[in-house]
Amino acid sequence: MYDVTRGLRDGGTFLLNTIWEGEELAKNLPNKVKRYFAEHNITVYYINATRIAQEIGLGNRTNTILQSAFFRITEVIPVDLAVEQMKKFIVKSYGKKGQDVVDKNYAAVDRGGEYKKLDVDPAWASLPDDAVVANNDPEFINKVVRPINAQDGDLLPVSAFINDADGTWAQGTAKYEKRGVAAFVPEWDKDNCIQCNKCAYVCPHASIRPFVITPEELAAAPFGEDATIPAIGKTFTGMRFMQAVDVLDCLGCGNCVDVCPGKKGVKALAMKPLETQLDIQKNWDYCVDNVKSKASLVDVKANVKNSQFATPLFEFSGACSGCGETPYVKLITQLFGDREIVANATGCSSIYSGSVPSTPYTKDENGRGPAWANSLFEDFCEFGLGMNIANEKMRERLDAAMRGVLDCPVCSEEIKALATNWLDEKNDAAKSREIADKLVPLMEACGCDACKKVLELKHFLVKRSQWIIGGDGASYDIGFGGLDHVIASGKDVNILVLDTEVYSNTGGQASKATPIGAIAKFAAAGKRIRKKDLGLIATTYGYVYVAQIAMGADQAQTLKAIREAEAYDGPSLIIAYAPCINHGIKAGMGKAQQEEANAVACGYWQLWRYNPAAELEGKNPFTLDSKEPNWDAFEDFLKGEVRYASVMKQYPAEAQELFQAAKANAKWRYNNYRRLAQQQWGVDPEVETLENN
Amino acid sequence: MYDVTRGLRDGGTFLLNTIWEGEELAKNLPNKVKRYFAEHNITVYYINATRIAQEIGLGNRTNTILQSAFFRITEVIPVDLAVEQMKKFIVKSYGKKGQDVVDKNYAAVDRGGEYKKLDVDPAWASLPDDAVVANNDPEFINKVVRPINAQDGDLLPVSAFINDADGTWAQGTAKYEKRGVAAFVPEWDKDNCIQCNKCAYVCPHASIRPFVITPEELAAAPFGEDATIPAIGKTFTGMRFMQAVDVLDCLGCGNCVDVCPGKKGVKALAMKPLETQLDIQKNWDYCVDNVKSKASLVDVKANVKNSQFATPLFEFSGACSGCGETPYVKLITQLFGDREIVANATGCSSIYSGSVPSTPYTKDENGRGPAWANSLFEDFCEFGLGMNIANEKMRERLDAAMRGVLDCPVCSEEIKALATNWLDEKNDAAKSREIADKLVPLMEACGCDACKKVLELKHFLVKRSQWIIGGDGASYDIGFGGLDHVIASGKDVNILVLDTEVYSNTGGQASKATPIGAIAKFAAAGKRIRKKDLGLIATTYGYVYVAQIAMGADQAQTLKAIREAEAYDGPSLIIAYAPCINHGIKAGMGKAQQEEANAVACGYWQLWRYNPAAELEGKNPFTLDSKEPNWDAFEDFLKGEVRYASVMKQYPAEAQELFQAAKANAKWRYNNYRRLAQQQWGVDPEVETLENN
Repeated sequence: MYDVTRGLRDGGTFLLNTIWEGEELAKNLPNKVKRYFAEHNITVYYINATRIAQEIGLGNRTNTILQSAFFRITEVIPVDLAVEQMKKFIVKSYGKKGQDVVDKNYAAVDRGGEYKKLDVDPAWASLPDDAVVANNDPEFINKVVRPINAQDGDLLPVSAFINDADGTWAQGTAKYEKRGVAAFVPEWDKDNCIQCNKCAYVCPHASIRPFVITPEELAAAPFGEDATIPAIGKTFTGMRFMQAVDVLDCLGCGNCVDVCPGKKGVKALAMKPLETQLDIQKNWDYCVDNVKSKASLVDVKANVKNSQFATPLFEFSGACSGCGETPYVKLITQLFGDREIVANATGCSSIYSGSVPSTPYTKDENGRGPAWANSLFEDFCEFGLGMNIANEKMRERLDAAMRGVLDCPVCSEEIKALATNWLDEKNDAAKSREIADKLVPLMEACGCDACKKVLELKHFLVKRSQWIIGGDGASYDIGFGGLDHVIASGKDVNILVLDTEVYSNTGGQASKATPIGAIAKFAAAGKRIRKKDLGLIATTYGYVYVAQIAMGADQAQTLKAIREAEAYDGPSLIIAYAPCINHGIKAGMGKAQQEEANAVACGYWQLWRYNPAAELEGKNPFTLDSKEPNWDAFEDFLKGEVRYASVMKQYPAEAQELFQAAKANAKWRYNNYRRLAQQQWGVDPEVETLENN
Repeated sequence: MYDVTRGLRDGGTFLLNTIWEGEELAKNLPNKVKRYFAEHNITVYYINATRIAQEIGLGNRTNTILQSAFFRITEVIPVDLAVEQMKKFIVKSYGKKGQDVVDKNYAAVDRGGEYKKLDVDPAWASLPDDAVVANNDPEFINKVVRPINAQDGDLLPVSAFINDADGTWAQGTAKYEKRGVAAFVPEWDKDNCIQCNKCAYVCPHASIRPFVITPEELAAAPFGEDATIPAIGKTFTGMRFMQAVDVLDCLGCGNCVDVCPGKKGVKALAMKPLETQLDIQKNWDYCVDNVKSKASLVDVKANVKNSQFATPLFEFSGACSGCGETPYVKLITQLFGDREIVANATGCSSIYSGSVPSTPYTKDENGRGPAWANSLFEDFCEFGLGMNIANEKMRERLDAAMRGVLDCPVCSEEIKALATNWLDEKNDAAKSREIADKLVPLMEACGCDACKKVLELKHFLVKRSQWIIGGDGASYDIGFGGLDHVIASGKDVNILVLDTEVYSNTGGQASKATPIGAIAKFAAAGKRIRKKDLGLIATTYGYVYVAQIAMGADQAQTLKAIREAEAYDGPSLIIAYAPCINHGIKAGMGKAQQEEANAVACGYWQLWRYNPAAELEGKNPFTLDSKEPNWDAFEDFLKGEVRYASVMKQYPAEAQELFQAAKANAKWRYNNYRRLAQQQWGVDPEVETLENN
């Protein structure tokens, strides 16, 4: 993709990190590159730093290995001195993270010498040009997106952007990247699959999905029936099931494998080297392009399994492998994506949700998908409230236009009946969609002035689902004044807080969501004050739906909370626990979902919901969904994350006290929640008159 | 004070609003003015608009009467037309406030004709200059403050400000104004006084104060023993008591009279015309200048009575007559003023606390008083946090300097013992003061380098009391993000929210503190969403002291909450209910304290305290101080204030629903508080380890 030899001088040296060796490597290099090597007398080395890093236990961190190789090959300074200095700076950079991390990096320096030389064949100088691979991708992808991704964006003329001059950008460009960066990807073993779809539910990149295939669809597929299993479920009778993997978009985190319950203790997924799985990409490609969504055959909001039959409208983002945030963002698009509008705060979620030219938000087979825009840290909720108010105003106009239809001498009785129906049901998502689908073609056929007025506003016929998404930095700190103002407004917006307990995108600074005892930037000795209880704050209004969730701990509770929040006709706030690379999970980000489960099991995180709708029925609006934690596991949980474990190394004297305070605070929170859940609630006839205000 | 004839032309017309008539008026006019009248052939009219306004029931609103007089005298347009237009605009301006208000203004227009002509004696032309009244006031008052107050500030040269070029301004300049603007002031009837000091406690302008007078002080007084009564209290044996009134600084609200319990149902205070009370001003002047504070003979923090023996260090501000805010501000200066630092938000409190050249914050007889500065709406809490952190840092330096004394070969053992004592007790207000008072003279005498280093920082020897003061607009809305951040910090600051439930100083816009049903700007049809529960939000941190108070409802609870908040070693938030002219209290601002009592009695406002210190002892930190309200009185309370009553007039159809919602919300809040107060609390050994973080 990149022009990697650009700038390489005659007689220069080139080092390649690759999984191939010798002749196989030569075979896989493009002609253009080989010709350049021969024509310019280049000395070529290669190394499999990816494999070495894994062997050492550094995951995908190849930087130290490659740096070591660089010094050994170039000899810009004596190699001994280079090694000595690299090791000195390893202690400086990683000393705080423990001897283990230091030792691994030492090993990386030592193994940087494992490079080999590639013989450059002088005959390569006369190799022909590489064949151009034709594709059917949209012009915008080929002419704008790909050059930008190849770092040639500054060569594009203004005229290339002529269709996007208003600042809009096409949805769904991320799927054309097919980066293939995972060293290992899941392989589906159909015989052990129980079709629970938990793997798809947690996938941060939407690159494993269940497909339900009709006999007709199967007939044209590049795979046979034996690659599938009978789909479970009455409405799927006669259809086949495949859990397909998009190996080129998978980032190889392995959470799918980790959550797979399998059959009789044998998992239906296992991580395999990418190169062994490249041949199944065609299965994915066929399913995505040719197998129709079967979401309409089930109630997708009913349970976790069903939710995954809805096509994700957020896919292949640039989030980290194993990201704890994106599974929540993706799930919302599956439940409400065809009518979803998102106001996104600055932070990780704004970067992975829309970094030009890559847009992971996409459209369904009907061309419907979320509309997304990004504002700042400090006003993201107001930004979303503005969208909501604009929508309200436009629907007021639409309401007036629709009433015009009722008096129209031209419109048919059928149109009038539907118009009346719409006026009654316009705030019901499913019904407004159903009516709109019938009404628009009839009105287009009618063509009278009254119908034209409605059609001018047809984008507002379907009830929208307004979402406001931000991290804990935006929500607990910088944008909190606005968040508070917006929930106070009583307007029907849904706020999702992706709580990594730290400013993730800017490098891990402490926020008010950072718990006591955690190390973060600006809290280098471990934070000394408690985590803010943003959710409990929001409950004080009484008319705000609030939930704390952690997908890995309870997939069903997550689904229920998101469903209830969206259905509630008023402000909603969902605080979602999201493991992050900044936490330094010792088990790795492939265990992110398990880490969520551990967090709840030991009392570190709590699951609860506050539903104002319950109070109107005389019930306690507060429900504690977490079981009594196993407090004995609390300290082990902390020790499993570098952000806590490093306190022990750096401040051993205070670590015990901080850990104890962290546990005491978690207990204090849990006790608060338990007390709230146990409160007596009676029907007060006068309090019953309180509605959403 | 003002040069009122400046700009008046030869043969011009002059109208004076005055309580005097005819010859008495002539006698009271300065020679300078009379000479101007005679020399320039001025036609002079006068009217007692103040009396007329009172007779009509317009309080001190003389504007319509004087406007009517203006049109009648000048005949700039035909008088009939003027009257017609004035009445038309009265309906426009006040129609929403009810027919009663319209009728009163109609009467004002009609009675604007009750002016008389003053005969100008041609002999006045040769009157001599008025005698210059000598005074002993500071040069700064005579040379800077008075010219500015006389609207001659733009005539002052830069050099006049040479001592204040750094932006500081002298404290206590307000007392030199002696505006004498109250038509009626309280007269003390010693025979019915029980010395409870409730009058002084509620006075918004600190212009009624108890003095305890020794025989020596009495001997030199301009009044005899018969003007006093024996002071009640063991420590006052042999002394006399006087409740002195500063009739020239009193704004005549009458709250002192209203709260006076009197003896056997007969009040010890009654409002009398100012002119009948002018001769007692000398009593006040003598007491203020010559009677020493007896605060040291009692524990001023123990109870309401004692608190008033501490000299208020906030006096004679420009707040409205009957202001509900200033009694709280004043009380804090009485309890902590000698070591108080205030960060003040923009709003009424910033205007009345420091409008150049008038500074109501002042110093005690030892020259000690609050330091005050004002920042913006949106950062007032951060502003105060900055002061607190600066103070912490300076005290860290002082701590190091003090340790230097311990090792000093020159310092005496006495100094070293006191230094050790200070290091142990530096965070105890009383002890740090006591040690500082002994240490400073000894160190000044010693003069060694170690002592010099301490003396450079001697301002930080005494523990400070950091206050952050703002209105509901700043606290609930614009500065809320900062307020939240500051209380989250765990630092030892005290935030006082003066809750008028509306943006008072900018003209009555709705804030998130505005309750449902109230009319305000931007909520012209009555606010539709509930009042935000700022206090409950703050309790979610668990380490923030929080209280809701209303002085008029429970003077002792107010004192207790302020005392506990200041003593708590962590952040505190006090939300004080403050009646305001924007409420349109039908009984008048002289009933502001009674209105607070009514608000609590009917359940409109609730009194409670959340003390984290209690939780450390295994007790429920939440205490509900309000009794079960008489809900039947709720609607009458609303009808007693124009902000609610006008909803009935303007939106009769919705008023009942809004009032019901307001009552339901008040009940909902009260029920929440009651549930919190009734929660079971147990000692959890691990939770006990939680301290202020």
